[in-house]
Amino acid sequence: MRVVTMGEMMIRFMPKGNLRIEQADEFEVHYGGDESIVAVSLARFGMESRYVTKLPENPLGDNTLRKLKSHSVDTSYVARGGERLGLNFYENGASVRPSIVLYDRKNSAIADADPEDFDFDAIFKDADWFHISGITPAISDKAAKLTEVAMKAAKKYDVTISIDLNYRAKLWSVEKAQSVMIPLMQYVDVCIGGAEDAARMLDFKSSKPMYTEEGYNIEAYKEYFVGLKEEFGFKYVASTLREGASSSDNAWAALLYDGKEFYHTRKYELHLVDRGGGGASFSAGLIYGILNGFDIAKTGEFAVAASALKQTIMGDYNLVNLDEVYALMNGDGSGRVQR
Amino acid sequence: MRVVTMGEMMIRFMPKGNLRIEQADEFEVHYGGDESIVAVSLARFGMESRYVTKLPENPLGDNTLRKLKSHSVDTSYVARGGERLGLNFYENGASVRPSIVLYDRKNSAIADADPEDFDFDAIFKDADWFHISGITPAISDKAAKLTEVAMKAAKKYDVTISIDLNYRAKLWSVEKAQSVMIPLMQYVDVCIGGAEDAARMLDFKSSKPMYTEEGYNIEAYKEYFVGLKEEFGFKYVASTLREGASSSDNAWAALLYDGKEFYHTRKYELHLVDRGGGGASFSAGLIYGILNGFDIAKTGEFAVAASALKQTIMGDYNLVNLDEVYALMNGDGSGRVQR
Amino acid sequence: MRVVTMGEMMIRFMPKGNLRIEQADEFEVHYGGDESIVAVSLARFGMESRYVTKLPENPLGDNTLRKLKSHSVDTSYVARGGERLGLNFYENGASVRPSIVLYDRKNSAIADADPEDFDFDAIFKDADWFHISGITPAISDKAAKLTEVAMKAAKKYDVTISIDLNYRAKLWSVEKAQSVMIPLMQYVDVCIGGAEDAARMLDFKSSKPMYTEEGYNIEAYKEYFVGLKEEFGFKYVASTLREGASSSDNAWAALLYDGKEFYHTRKYELHLVDRGGGGASFSAGLIYGILNGFDIAKTGEFAVAASALKQTIMGDYNLVNLDEVYALMNGDGSGRVQR
Amino acid sequence: MRVVTMGEMMIRFMPKGNLRIEQADEFEVHYGGDESIVAVSLARFGMESRYVTKLPENPLGDNTLRKLKSHSVDTSYVARGGERLGLNFYENGASVRPSIVLYDRKNSAIADADPEDFDFDAIFKDADWFHISGITPAISDKAAKLTEVAMKAAKKYDVTISIDLNYRAKLWSVEKAQSVMIPLMQYVDVCIGGAEDAARMLDFKSSKPMYTEEGYNIEAYKEYFVGLKEEFGFKYVASTLREGASSSDNAWAALLYDGKEFYHTRKYELHLVDRGGGGASFSAGLIYGILNGFDIAKTGEFAVAASALKQTIMGDYNLVNLDEVYALMNGDGSGRVQR
Amino acid sequence: MRVVTMGEMMIRFMPKGNLRIEQADEFEVHYGGDESIVAVSLARFGMESRYVTKLPENPLGDNTLRKLKSHSVDTSYVARGGERLGLNFYENGASVRPSIVLYDRKNSAIADADPEDFDFDAIFKDADWFHISGITPAISDKAAKLTEVAMKAAKKYDVTISIDLNYRAKLWSVEKAQSVMIPLMQYVDVCIGGAEDAARMLDFKSSKPMYTEEGYNIEAYKEYFVGLKEEFGFKYVASTLREGASSSDNAWAALLYDGKEFYHTRKYELHLVDRGGGGASFSAGLIYGILNGFDIAKTGEFAVAASALKQTIMGDYNLVNLDEVYALMNGDGSGRVQR
Amino acid sequence: MRVVTMGEMMIRFMPKGNLRIEQADEFEVHYGGDESIVAVSLARFGMESRYVTKLPENPLGDNTLRKLKSHSVDTSYVARGGERLGLNFYENGASVRPSIVLYDRKNSAIADADPEDFDFDAIFKDADWFHISGITPAISDKAAKLTEVAMKAAKKYDVTISIDLNYRAKLWSVEKAQSVMIPLMQYVDVCIGGAEDAARMLDFKSSKPMYTEEGYNIEAYKEYFVGLKEEFGFKYVASTLREGASSSDNAWAALLYDGKEFYHTRKYELHLVDRGGGGASFSAGLIYGILNGFDIAKTGEFAVAASALKQTIMGDYNLVNLDEVYALMNGDGSGRVQR
Repeated sequence: MRVVTMGEMMIRFMPKGNLRIEQADEFEVHYGGDESIVAVSLARFGMESRYVTKLPENPLGDNTLRKLKSHSVDTSYVARGGERLGLNFYENGASVRPSIVLYDRKNSAIADADPEDFDFDAIFKDADWFHISGITPAISDKAAKLTEVAMKAAKKYDVTISIDLNYRAKLWSVEKAQSVMIPLMQYVDVCIGGAEDAARMLDFKSSKPMYTEEGYNIEAYKEYFVGLKEEFGFKYVASTLREGASSSDNAWAALLYDGKEFYHTRKYELHLVDRGGGGASFSAGLIYGILNGFDIAKTGEFAVAASALKQTIMGDYNLVNLDEVYALMNGDGSGRVQR
Repeated sequence: MRVVTMGEMMIRFMPKGNLRIEQADEFEVHYGGDESIVAVSLARFGMESRYVTKLPENPLGDNTLRKLKSHSVDTSYVARGGERLGLNFYENGASVRPSIVLYDRKNSAIADADPEDFDFDAIFKDADWFHISGITPAISDKAAKLTEVAMKAAKKYDVTISIDLNYRAKLWSVEKAQSVMIPLMQYVDVCIGGAEDAARMLDFKSSKPMYTEEGYNIEAYKEYFVGLKEEFGFKYVASTLREGASSSDNAWAALLYDGKEFYHTRKYELHLVDRGGGGASFSAGLIYGILNGFDIAKTGEFAVAASALKQTIMGDYNLVNLDEVYALMNGDGSGRVQR
Repeated sequence: MRVVTMGEMMIRFMPKGNLRIEQADEFEVHYGGDESIVAVSLARFGMESRYVTKLPENPLGDNTLRKLKSHSVDTSYVARGGERLGLNFYENGASVRPSIVLYDRKNSAIADADPEDFDFDAIFKDADWFHISGITPAISDKAAKLTEVAMKAAKKYDVTISIDLNYRAKLWSVEKAQSVMIPLMQYVDVCIGGAEDAARMLDFKSSKPMYTEEGYNIEAYKEYFVGLKEEFGFKYVASTLREGASSSDNAWAALLYDGKEFYHTRKYELHLVDRGGGGASFSAGLIYGILNGFDIAKTGEFAVAASALKQTIMGDYNLVNLDEVYALMNGDGSGRVQR
Repeated sequence: MRVVTMGEMMIRFMPKGNLRIEQADEFEVHYGGDESIVAVSLARFGMESRYVTKLPENPLGDNTLRKLKSHSVDTSYVARGGERLGLNFYENGASVRPSIVLYDRKNSAIADADPEDFDFDAIFKDADWFHISGITPAISDKAAKLTEVAMKAAKKYDVTISIDLNYRAKLWSVEKAQSVMIPLMQYVDVCIGGAEDAARMLDFKSSKPMYTEEGYNIEAYKEYFVGLKEEFGFKYVASTLREGASSSDNAWAALLYDGKEFYHTRKYELHLVDRGGGGASFSAGLIYGILNGFDIAKTGEFAVAASALKQTIMGDYNLVNLDEVYALMNGDGSGRVQR
Repeated sequence: MRVVTMGEMMIRFMPKGNLRIEQADEFEVHYGGDESIVAVSLARFGMESRYVTKLPENPLGDNTLRKLKSHSVDTSYVARGGERLGLNFYENGASVRPSIVLYDRKNSAIADADPEDFDFDAIFKDADWFHISGITPAISDKAAKLTEVAMKAAKKYDVTISIDLNYRAKLWSVEKAQSVMIPLMQYVDVCIGGAEDAARMLDFKSSKPMYTEEGYNIEAYKEYFVGLKEEFGFKYVASTLREGASSSDNAWAALLYDGKEFYHTRKYELHLVDRGGGGASFSAGLIYGILNGFDIAKTGEFAVAASALKQTIMGDYNLVNLDEVYALMNGDGSGRVQR
Repeated sequence: MRVVTMGEMMIRFMPKGNLRIEQADEFEVHYGGDESIVAVSLARFGMESRYVTKLPENPLGDNTLRKLKSHSVDTSYVARGGERLGLNFYENGASVRPSIVLYDRKNSAIADADPEDFDFDAIFKDADWFHISGITPAISDKAAKLTEVAMKAAKKYDVTISIDLNYRAKLWSVEKAQSVMIPLMQYVDVCIGGAEDAARMLDFKSSKPMYTEEGYNIEAYKEYFVGLKEEFGFKYVASTLREGASSSDNAWAALLYDGKEFYHTRKYELHLVDRGGGGASFSAGLIYGILNGFDIAKTGEFAVAASALKQTIMGDYNLVNLDEVYALMNGDGSGRVQR
């Protein structure tokens, strides 16, 4: 089973530990990017995972490629060229201090890429699934166009399409996002994203509050999912449910809807090491579950366990294997030393 | 609006992470000192902030000065000379293991400074506020004398004076502290400090317990503040309220009394990165609020939010800006990534 | 009072912070080994502490010896020679991600040692206590034999013998463990270990669950201890009681039985820095208490406080002194800075 | 005496030690930029030093400003705004492996700055000297225009103007450079730069080889300097003379010509720590010497000693004081420990 | 063109900088192994490079594999299983202090591998060249057998075979080495190694000294090469020529003989960063040159330049690309910054 | 054979690599002190080595003691108490930039120690040699007195006394040094120190230059040694001979005179890792040679080889063993990897 993902890979510069950007006289280098996190997760789970992007012809681009190859991601369709690799500076918050991202990603190779940089027929003809996030069309008009071209090409080969909405206020306005995203929804089979993002990106709002002092209003969320499905024709809708008022600790769960059933997963209380990549790791788990024919409950528990583990790991990628996800799913979150 | 502070700056040598001093084969270098923390906070909030101290003429003294200048603190009245810079070794505790300070600050330049080292008329004639902690008079008899001289000079120019009591058992005895501190109180307008410190330093005790198993007894504390005001003629009394039985986690709030009203702030549950500088950051927030005409509630919430943020930041200084303090005050302690 | 311990010392390679082994491009080097942790603890508490092992004649063996000497452990009877020093790779878990140990300890010098490498008469004739863990006989058949020889020699000099059961599934099967351990029990006076390990290693099972959703069933545990005493003739039985479903936080307490009384200690809620060495530090505390004539309550509180502190310290050894243990025992877990 | 410099400040990301960019999982953060190096040197030598640039309103811009302030550089005329801070990735070579710079500086705040961002009348009216490098006009057309505007404004106030040619092939072509640089030369009093750069940027070539297997041809160089003076009307011409075929070791000297005399300095054999900033530190030394009325020999020895020291210091800035430069000038390069 | 190499990959634990093993409280982790260095070099030069080994099924084995994949080495025929990954501890010497290797590689997966672990027909049928070092048959009797089986299989498919003699005194005696190596020479086409190793491993001695105070005796070396060719039927003989009495600096050159001509390369004076992997990088360069039809001079200069660069790079692998090797070959060892 | 040494141990805070003190945001912690370096060297060479000092009762004092114990130095006579541990800040120079020491050692425990702190009869009655440096009497008047008391006590037991002159301009003036040192010389058997120090401390000058552009004037030095012997009655005079005008590279040799013969050792060209402790390591080698009955040549070569190795090792202590010294003495400075 082969999954294709497409997006931007960036270097994430991160001060060590809990230092502020202001305090950093050295930055850790992490490679990330939403869709590449999905690609790496799926490759590590043993699937054929093809990642599509454009990388500059310089040592940073080379490194990015090596990182992907090390995890057995198929990089045959990565284009080379363009001006630069996108960067971001990420400050890990702590307790009541929020984490901060400072983007420096304009004019990146993928933001300036053309559809001609990629042979989408070759890319999709042996593929089963195409996943993309709402960050990719946000990075530039050309990237929005590229997203549309890719989705159409995928549909040509009957490839299932999933999107993780992922609204980024620093990249585009609500208006701009809606103008790009709503037309793309006709190609989407599986929509991943919370009510807040859907409201902003798809202009689809609920009159009921999804979140109250007691936490998520699951019944309202279910209604909302049904509405999304009806409005946009999705076959599957899912969202992670993060709770917590601290950069150090969060609760983590998910709600899934396959058009028939709902499933509300177990909730993990997480002490966060690096929350980055949590959402994308959930997407990877969801895709893995669906493609392997898991039922909605097993899919949900797999995806939420995988993405919970991610948040205990430094860096963007979910450096776990299948056994570790299953172990947590099956209840061994005991913190016992394995010896 | 110009605030003057005076005190000792020290290098704080700190093992990395949670290592014990015994385990350290390298020490992180932090610069600190109670009043300099106030000075840096106020300069970062945009106020004119003048810091008075004496630093040795060596690379460590130079570094200290550069650190202050980088934060736009006015160092025009920093004297140079003397024998050495005070040091301390600080071991960050964890969980049930307490943090430890090992002082090596005898014979520091400021401990041996003379009033003649400073032109107090120039220092205070354009100033609005003078802040000092009870640590400064504790470091030596000369420093106690210097404190008195400075307070008198400040009063000559009708400068508001605040003191943060801050009893340090490793620097002086209760008896010695009282003999120095009580006579100084006639100059003080704003007294910052908990009942425990006031009892030890001002010999002012309450018959009621201020702290019980349920936490602080706020009503007893209010009575106590009224008593302090009456006894010493303070215009304003305030204290932070720290709760917790762990080096890793604390609750943090404050009680303020402006002679008319009391205000008990919101309580933050903090996962501590570095609790050092929490009290001084509160003092800075209090001074900022009063000088900017905030009401007692806004002053209290500002000061407690600012000092809560400090404790999520490594090192002595409160490396935040006004927007970040307001964001936390206004309720965004959500730990959401800002992107 | 002189305590002898015997076992294997290993290098523990540990990625920094919460990194996975996969992410480590450098490993911290820690020296450990269950019995050496006991030896170092007791030496630091001021007792005569003799450690017996065999170390290779190479820089790693030299380092191991220097580490012991630095803590004033008597290394006069450490044999030199053999092929290699045992190693392990240890990944510190976080939150729902468990810690992992990867052993690489086959053919270590001590695993291949012969009884002739040691002059047990000299070793034990001036000793009061001999402590060993169930890990030592597990590392090889020769080490199992060596354990037996040592126990017999100790008994010849009326030395009290304690064992910490410590079942290691990666070293031997339950069947093998029982075949070695049960015959050794005739020499043992003090048995330290939980019901789970006793069941596996001594084939001694209880029909009652020792642990339920509410935590440990202390009454069942007491019955179990009585049973163990009767079956194997132990004079003293004790076990630590760890609770928690996270690699980051645990509760920590202990239950002791001296053949007459039971004592269930205070429970510490720990934010873990490094849980490794917790059990061995408890053993050291227990031995210290008994040898110093503490009553069962003081013994238990001392041992559990000492071992709680250990878990707030990075590395295998319990780098505390007596004053620090007493301070925690006596209730100062307040996290207050000592200045 | 006040010196104004203007240019771009960048973050330099550098792998630790001799690692390649490819190997770096963390980068050291250095702040640099040719003219800012001159500004910091002069401020450290005790001169009034004003630096003009534009910095983005983000934590990286703030840090840059703090770095300048810490060295007492006057930043009153630093504009804020624009899109980003320029970056470069710098790989320290070793032995036969050359150092590599990878620029990522397009669209930086200063590259997009307008003359209106700066009040050049205020900037120059109390100034004695204006220094700029040939890198600044190379970064963008707007920056070239800005350079011209600044030079004209400086001339209005009879400010001496120096330029360090500094050709950067990765920023512009020879043709483009000449079209910008030649017209600017009318404003320049002091030209710093080697024959190679002058040939490329000013289209001024010599028929004689300046460098042979035996090293620099000083006589040819002198002729060349005379020619430059005649062609462009410079009052002073100077160039550093670097020799060596290794990234680890270089010889370092200079040739100066004040329109009357030539001076060829002592040659230092340097083991390089960080050659970056060597040229700019020479410029600072030259300006310091001329403005302080040193004769050409003292100016030359001061400038070459200062810049030799720079290359033994990690990072862009020449973190020395006057005493250290004089000590080296006066012959104490003995490597003796000062104790 | 496809090159197959086979051997052992090890973790190299290295103290930072110039620290001794004794001083290391952390070790850098490098992956290496002679033949894998050849494989990575050739893959980076753009060739098809297949590496054959056996790796344990644990995180260390996984990491090893990821490292190879990241450099685009074909790992399809890497077997998994066995007990452990071989290790070594390597202390970088300095100046008059030699570097030290401490092996801990017994019972590694590849040392215990069987011919049945590999499908040699598949491995060699599309291959052009097979390279192995004399370290591989030295690690165990099974590995010596495996080497013979592999050589025979390679010959079956007319694959050119090269060997790098590489005597390791810590792995086998001279007698044992000769008994294994001499019979293998019948399969070898290209022999790489100095006279000292050939004397020890092939019992082939010269009466003339190869090395005198003036350096290598090239004429004697040429005679020796002719002798080797005649005795063992090699088609090509080559050796690197290292000179120097310091761990910090060496000269580096090579002598090649293709059965007709000799070529003595340029000599590089190297300031060493990490000399490990120098010899294997030479082998890779030699193979690249021969397979690409370079003449003997170009082959020699390519191989010696590539391997000179290696020694300026930390870690075992020669992290350069073709352009960098050509640049050095063509004379740009100027240490100029590329900007 | 037992050697006693006495002096001050200090923490040396050192920036990493070649950073300046100004750049250090962390300091490496090294323990040192001239006589302790001798003590550790001799203990590592297998001699009974007793070190006498006074250390404060705090974690820094504890660490110091542990460091000594780890090297098997006899610390039975180390007194505890006093105010603080002496510190110094040491900046490693590079190339033309000299190394810098910043002392902060006033009021250290040993500087304030009384003769009553030590039982000199017990200390010396089983000793063969007493070594001290001229730094110890320089640190305070009490330490000068202590030195005299110790020397007298040593003489009572016919213990050979050696002194390493080691003038420290930052600790005392030439006049003060002479007033203390000259009277002490009556007890000294072996005087170690160069002509420059002897001139300053013993007021013993030569009319001939000892050092010229060609290097040391060995003949003049010999005359000078004879003069010293005659003036002060020394039985043995020796001096190391350091040459070089760089912080990175030095030549290192020695001249010895046993009252009969002179011996001028081999000269090592050193690339320095840390020159600190070079002189003390020479003293240790000299003492080892004399006590083991080596002839003057073997003594000299041993001492100079040992101290050459020291300078390739980071930190104060000469972390080598006898085999390594002999290997270098016997000519293996080849920089060959030992594998």
